[in-house]
Amino acid sequence: MADTTTRIDETHELIASDKVEGTAVYSPADEKLGTISHFMVDKQTGHVAYAVMSFGGFLGMGNSYHPLPWRALHYDVNRQGYVVDLTPDQLKGAPSYTSETMPNWSDQLYGHQIDKYYEGPLGH
Amino acid sequence: MADTTTRIDETHELIASDKVEGTAVYSPADEKLGTISHFMVDKQTGHVAYAVMSFGGFLGMGNSYHPLPWRALHYDVNRQGYVVDLTPDQLKGAPSYTSETMPNWSDQLYGHQIDKYYEGPLGH
Repeated sequence: MADTTTRIDETHELIASDKVEGTAVYSPADEKLGTISHFMVDKQTGHVAYAVMSFGGFLGMGNSYHPLPWRALHYDVNRQGYVVDLTPDQLKGAPSYTSETMPNWSDQLYGHQIDKYYEGPLGH
Repeated sequence: MADTTTRIDETHELIASDKVEGTAVYSPADEKLGTISHFMVDKQTGHVAYAVMSFGGFLGMGNSYHPLPWRALHYDVNRQGYVVDLTPDQLKGAPSYTSETMPNWSDQLYGHQIDKYYEGPLGH
């Protein structure tokens, strides 16, 4: 049943949010970086602004959250997870927070900070 | 803790997907219709194509799922839930499925069918 649902939802066009949440994220060098925790969705437009990846300490940190631009994530059928075109070093310097230091998303500066950071690594 | 998180994530700009999932949906006449189950997200663009509302039998049906256009949902701070600009009759005639009759999302005709249905009720 779970398998069938997954196959149906993960088409080339549309994917179910609750299937993405919990999916593993890997570096291009195949290191497991974390899992997708949730999305941040623009209320007005319905556009996914960021996919928030949670880390369980891989980078020497406690549990932390990295908001990633949607375009940074590419689904890899073989790994059954997302590959993000970023090195661990690039991620270490990226905007992140913990459950004790939740960002103020209503301050648009936070989003601008994320966008600005990823302009470089993602070459866009 | 849960309260704080909710307040921070539900800004006028961005909202966390895992906060939307499970949120109640009401008719304009204040009838509870169901809850948001998950989103269908376009893999390429990151756009939320549909918010899928699950019904627990309110309309005389068993548990069923109605994919709604994002623009049909408006958050009501007082009700702490979404209000959908549709009458129960409009919803009864809308595309829906059960866990036994999952749609084939990879067939774009299904999406077109949803879009076409809501063109009328949503006046767009």
